[in-house]
Amino acid sequence: MSHIATASAQAFKQELPYYEPVGNECALFEQAYRQRLPLLLKGPTGCGKTRFVSHMAAKLGRPLFTVSCHDDLTAADLTGRYLLQGGETRWVDGPLTRAVREGGICYLDEVVEARKDVTVVLHPLTDDRRLLPLERTGELLEAPDDFMLVVSYNPGYQHILKSLKPSTRQRFVAMSFDFPPPRVECEIVARESGLAFERCAALVNLAASLRAMKGQDLEEGVSTRLLVYCATLINAGMPILDAACATLVEPLSDDQDVQQGLMEAIKATFG
Amino acid sequence: MSHIATASAQAFKQELPYYEPVGNECALFEQAYRQRLPLLLKGPTGCGKTRFVSHMAAKLGRPLFTVSCHDDLTAADLTGRYLLQGGETRWVDGPLTRAVREGGICYLDEVVEARKDVTVVLHPLTDDRRLLPLERTGELLEAPDDFMLVVSYNPGYQHILKSLKPSTRQRFVAMSFDFPPPRVECEIVARESGLAFERCAALVNLAASLRAMKGQDLEEGVSTRLLVYCATLINAGMPILDAACATLVEPLSDDQDVQQGLMEAIKATFG
Amino acid sequence: MSHIATASAQAFKQELPYYEPVGNECALFEQAYRQRLPLLLKGPTGCGKTRFVSHMAAKLGRPLFTVSCHDDLTAADLTGRYLLQGGETRWVDGPLTRAVREGGICYLDEVVEARKDVTVVLHPLTDDRRLLPLERTGELLEAPDDFMLVVSYNPGYQHILKSLKPSTRQRFVAMSFDFPPPRVECEIVARESGLAFERCAALVNLAASLRAMKGQDLEEGVSTRLLVYCATLINAGMPILDAACATLVEPLSDDQDVQQGLMEAIKATFG
Amino acid sequence: MSHIATASAQAFKQELPYYEPVGNECALFEQAYRQRLPLLLKGPTGCGKTRFVSHMAAKLGRPLFTVSCHDDLTAADLTGRYLLQGGETRWVDGPLTRAVREGGICYLDEVVEARKDVTVVLHPLTDDRRLLPLERTGELLEAPDDFMLVVSYNPGYQHILKSLKPSTRQRFVAMSFDFPPPRVECEIVARESGLAFERCAALVNLAASLRAMKGQDLEEGVSTRLLVYCATLINAGMPILDAACATLVEPLSDDQDVQQGLMEAIKATFG
Amino acid sequence: MSHIATASAQAFKQELPYYEPVGNECALFEQAYRQRLPLLLKGPTGCGKTRFVSHMAAKLGRPLFTVSCHDDLTAADLTGRYLLQGGETRWVDGPLTRAVREGGICYLDEVVEARKDVTVVLHPLTDDRRLLPLERTGELLEAPDDFMLVVSYNPGYQHILKSLKPSTRQRFVAMSFDFPPPRVECEIVARESGLAFERCAALVNLAASLRAMKGQDLEEGVSTRLLVYCATLINAGMPILDAACATLVEPLSDDQDVQQGLMEAIKATFG
Amino acid sequence: MSHIATASAQAFKQELPYYEPVGNECALFEQAYRQRLPLLLKGPTGCGKTRFVSHMAAKLGRPLFTVSCHDDLTAADLTGRYLLQGGETRWVDGPLTRAVREGGICYLDEVVEARKDVTVVLHPLTDDRRLLPLERTGELLEAPDDFMLVVSYNPGYQHILKSLKPSTRQRFVAMSFDFPPPRVECEIVARESGLAFERCAALVNLAASLRAMKGQDLEEGVSTRLLVYCATLINAGMPILDAACATLVEPLSDDQDVQQGLMEAIKATFG
Repeated sequence: MSHIATASAQAFKQELPYYEPVGNECALFEQAYRQRLPLLLKGPTGCGKTRFVSHMAAKLGRPLFTVSCHDDLTAADLTGRYLLQGGETRWVDGPLTRAVREGGICYLDEVVEARKDVTVVLHPLTDDRRLLPLERTGELLEAPDDFMLVVSYNPGYQHILKSLKPSTRQRFVAMSFDFPPPRVECEIVARESGLAFERCAALVNLAASLRAMKGQDLEEGVSTRLLVYCATLINAGMPILDAACATLVEPLSDDQDVQQGLMEAIKATFG
Repeated sequence: MSHIATASAQAFKQELPYYEPVGNECALFEQAYRQRLPLLLKGPTGCGKTRFVSHMAAKLGRPLFTVSCHDDLTAADLTGRYLLQGGETRWVDGPLTRAVREGGICYLDEVVEARKDVTVVLHPLTDDRRLLPLERTGELLEAPDDFMLVVSYNPGYQHILKSLKPSTRQRFVAMSFDFPPPRVECEIVARESGLAFERCAALVNLAASLRAMKGQDLEEGVSTRLLVYCATLINAGMPILDAACATLVEPLSDDQDVQQGLMEAIKATFG
Repeated sequence: MSHIATASAQAFKQELPYYEPVGNECALFEQAYRQRLPLLLKGPTGCGKTRFVSHMAAKLGRPLFTVSCHDDLTAADLTGRYLLQGGETRWVDGPLTRAVREGGICYLDEVVEARKDVTVVLHPLTDDRRLLPLERTGELLEAPDDFMLVVSYNPGYQHILKSLKPSTRQRFVAMSFDFPPPRVECEIVARESGLAFERCAALVNLAASLRAMKGQDLEEGVSTRLLVYCATLINAGMPILDAACATLVEPLSDDQDVQQGLMEAIKATFG
Repeated sequence: MSHIATASAQAFKQELPYYEPVGNECALFEQAYRQRLPLLLKGPTGCGKTRFVSHMAAKLGRPLFTVSCHDDLTAADLTGRYLLQGGETRWVDGPLTRAVREGGICYLDEVVEARKDVTVVLHPLTDDRRLLPLERTGELLEAPDDFMLVVSYNPGYQHILKSLKPSTRQRFVAMSFDFPPPRVECEIVARESGLAFERCAALVNLAASLRAMKGQDLEEGVSTRLLVYCATLINAGMPILDAACATLVEPLSDDQDVQQGLMEAIKATFG
Repeated sequence: MSHIATASAQAFKQELPYYEPVGNECALFEQAYRQRLPLLLKGPTGCGKTRFVSHMAAKLGRPLFTVSCHDDLTAADLTGRYLLQGGETRWVDGPLTRAVREGGICYLDEVVEARKDVTVVLHPLTDDRRLLPLERTGELLEAPDDFMLVVSYNPGYQHILKSLKPSTRQRFVAMSFDFPPPRVECEIVARESGLAFERCAALVNLAASLRAMKGQDLEEGVSTRLLVYCATLINAGMPILDAACATLVEPLSDDQDVQQGLMEAIKATFG
Repeated sequence: MSHIATASAQAFKQELPYYEPVGNECALFEQAYRQRLPLLLKGPTGCGKTRFVSHMAAKLGRPLFTVSCHDDLTAADLTGRYLLQGGETRWVDGPLTRAVREGGICYLDEVVEARKDVTVVLHPLTDDRRLLPLERTGELLEAPDDFMLVVSYNPGYQHILKSLKPSTRQRFVAMSFDFPPPRVECEIVARESGLAFERCAALVNLAASLRAMKGQDLEEGVSTRLLVYCATLINAGMPILDAACATLVEPLSDDQDVQQGLMEAIKATFG
């Protein structure tokens, strides 16, 4: 079946994913990699953290292992498990173990969502020992120089039960992300959607006014991803207001008053 | 046994299910499908979301895999499991995996009910990678162009513990559904129940006044489905008030005062 | 062993269980069956819902599969499981699957007690598709015309965590049950206990006054079942007050004041 | 090993356990057994419910299967399980199933402590069908005439989460137990401990004054069992105050003031 | 490997562990053993309960099986389990079962911490039947005369969810423990640590003043065990204040003010 | 694969890890080891507890087994498990069991995070018996003289559900840790990062002022580890303010005001 690929193949085959730097983030990522320090990315939904990590992985020529963390993710989901096959148990490495064995970048997206036993694997990997103990197999892996651990979370909607303990946080070099500045965001949207740059510029301007509404009625501002969706539908011939409603209004809120406020801002731009 | 069919056979064998469009929903669904964007449907109980998805799946010629989500639904319920059979473990694809492999539409009804680990499969499938990692088998499936993910929920009775995180919501093109306008609803009820159009019109008028009671005493307004039930029983010869009581009153509330209010509205129309 | 019978044998062998209709309930049940609509019964403890379903199943000549729902009942308890036997796993149908395969009536008593994943099997069975997907076996069963789903609950002691979601409720034709009118209840008690009709009449009169105490001090009024118990013990020669204490007082309350109130009402009738 | 016996052997070998009737409890138990009605016993800790059931089981010549219920007791603990032995799964009947198959008395002590799925086995066994469905084996057992179900609980310390639902309670004939009257209790204590009747009488008098303190500072009054313990230690030569402290004070309370109050009452009798 | 021993070997090989009686505790323990009554010990942390039980077990010549109870300890942890070994399941007795089979003393330390299903094994073992039913193996063990059950808990820090139900408590002969009187505690500390008696006397005096601070700022007073630790370090040559800080201050509290208060009391004695 | 090493090999191969003593901690650790007493370390995140234990293990020539405790860590994670391999179950020792068998130091970092059943293994190991019972294998291991148990926790962010019970705490000799005094911390940072001593001195001065902000807005003060990270990046050529922002600001707080306060303190030193 042609659409099957292995996880590491995925990482190598990709050409350098497009990423437009905003500040010193590329230098900091590269230095952290060179000094074998783990990295923590903070920032809102859809501002480009995942894309940035893909870009850096390709630039550094390392395979990338991405894991979207969630309430039920355990250490075993990261390190691996014995599976029963043909009457025989066989150990299957998880994505973190593969990254350590093969020397790649393991990216744990929204790490605060994961269950607490992931600390058992993060702590020895993030001090000077850089070790990954696999109790089940009895192995103790030393991370090679080209292994790097990257984690991220969104400080905007953490709550008490979901936060990194200081004893875990203080093991990472950290940086904050935000939405890209307008010119950069225009280039991203134009490139991803195929819509003309000037038309994208109008969308990016609109995004700024929609993002200003955050905190009052909106949990999160509109993401770059949604701008790309909107531009894609417009480029496919959908009327602008229809496309904007389906991508910049409905995904952000269920509240009719908020939706109306968003729609008015859109009509003020495109109406 | 003649009443056994496989899941994908189901999808193909059905002729185009009847669906009466109300706005631009068919165009938006089709564009989302063509642009490979995931879709989020919002709307009240029984307003026709499931029917709409069936209709579009048949129109686009794609098999449909529907999953009613619930409190205990996990990622493994969607992706698949190893089952022990004859002393041998065999991998059995879940409905989402089948939709990805076969190029079909996977519809997760009331997705907010599902457990949080479904995000681990939704996130990589809903960004530009369109990947479904199967950690258990070691496969990484790339979704073909004719795969589409559709999810739905009812904004009317979400609560704090049951909502989509912004980081998930902002991955979807979205649209709102409501009950169809009277003429369309009449046609639906007449067609499904076999009752004459004019008698259905009276039922639809009644529905409007019953729906107006929502929020005060009723959690949800009467659904199109219940109107079809009512018309079906009337068409089978049941007295109108008996049929209305069993389909438009008893299923909506256990409260005697509310039931009496509903019954009076019914008698005012049919008494 | 002579007292072992299979579940379906049970359903067929029984002669028509005695049931005394009160209103249009038999007609409504039969029409719902004929129109292939699922049915929801609401009513207090011990008012005869289970007996009514047994009666209708026998009358319609269909096997009956009854399940008492509880806090830990899951979808798999209804649909079936793989069991390991002799080193080989074998699929064993649950009661719902058997009802679908064999064309019978499946009755889920106190359905609100069940766990939430039962909705995954109820939803596709209760819309126009009438499907039962068995993910574990890969089967998708179409319910035959002679399959019917009946569920019940007691609106008297639902609480917030235990109620049917509107999206589930609105899939059912529904009716309310209450205790039978005095003459009918007398006939039931006389027939079941063997006690003379006139002596049963006194018990039924007493029941009316005991039921009037509900809500003040009693969670539930005395059931028809307990009247039958009482009449049975009296018919076996037990003194009336002893029998009434053991069946109409002690099972209803642990509170001494309430017990005394009940006992006084009994003595006023029989003392 | 000589001290191993099978569960049913236990029931048969025992001679009639000593039990001193107080009211009509023996007649009521016997009638419930003869009429095939399930029985509910209510009463405080250590007042003789378990002994009473043993006595009646022996008198009726039926094996007795006693289960102490607790927070984690499930239906499977009562009905049975498949156990893997020698690579082969073998079904092992639980105590309730054995009682149904062999025609015995199953006694569920403190039934309110059990998990809620026990209702799934209690309900069909306690209506006129008297059935025990074993879903795992596919059997449906009809209880023979000499099967009886007895359950008990202590109304003194039920709480909201631990109570029988009315739909379960109203399936039982019920009776209340209390501590035996003084003369009877003396006989019991003398017989069990070997201590002379007159010395037991003093202990029973003391018990009455200790029980009067219940509710103020004591959760439960002193049980007949503890009186037997006390008499046993006195009969073995222990000083009365030491024996009373170890059996009538320390087991009842950890509070020093309460202990002192109890001790003073004891010294007033024996000091 | 020379430091491996079996559990029962442990019990027999030990010479009589040193224990200094304070009151009638040895006589009461022995009488409970002779009369086949279960025993409940109450008392603060580290006051010598475990040592007392070891002493009595050795004196009575019975093997001792000690279990430290905790939140997740279940009945199966006490009775035993089937373990899969070499493709074959084999039953492995738990410590309670071993004590019953071999005729020994089973000591459940801090029994209130255990899960509630332990009552299922405690109840039949603690009434006149003295039975241990092993449902999994189908055995019903009768405890031999030389079996004894001892349980303990600390009344000082019980809370609502963690207490013995009266129906369980009232099955035990009970006694309270406290720290030993000064002369006895001196002898214990001197014997265990090797430090001269007079230097131990100073420590025991100090302990009295530290224990007086309990309840105000300290959850628990200093235990005899910690006095032994302190004397051991002093005897090994550590400066007194260093030893006292590490054993009598740091283990008791994290609060700086409390620590300072303790340290001042220490300096007042030794400074 | 060259970067695989076994757990015990790890412990032996390492040369003496650098550790700069502050007070009597080395003497106390060594005496506790010699006297076979378990040790409890208390102190804030990143102050060097783990490094200290590594240092002492190497100095005493004992293998070190470190376990980062977490919410889901159970006794079995420490003692071992049966694993199914090749159709055969094989016992695999956990890190605690290995330490006992091989005579090493087992270090449970943040022990209060572990589940409560770890007390079942800690208690018998921390009294004079020094035993490790392995119920699953039936072994009872006596700890050899060169086994030592060390545990730690951070008193700064314990909460009610996460604390050591007094009955556990009072089994340990204990000591408090804090950040090292400036000169020592400078040496550590210089040695670990390669940055010149004088430049490190400025960082350590800065740390003192940042730590003074703790309690007001910061959960934890900056750790020595983060100072090392900062010095490492500066030494690699990164601008000082960029390095400080990524290591001394972003890892400590997500709050913009707090970040600004930290940044101002940094600029005051280096700006």
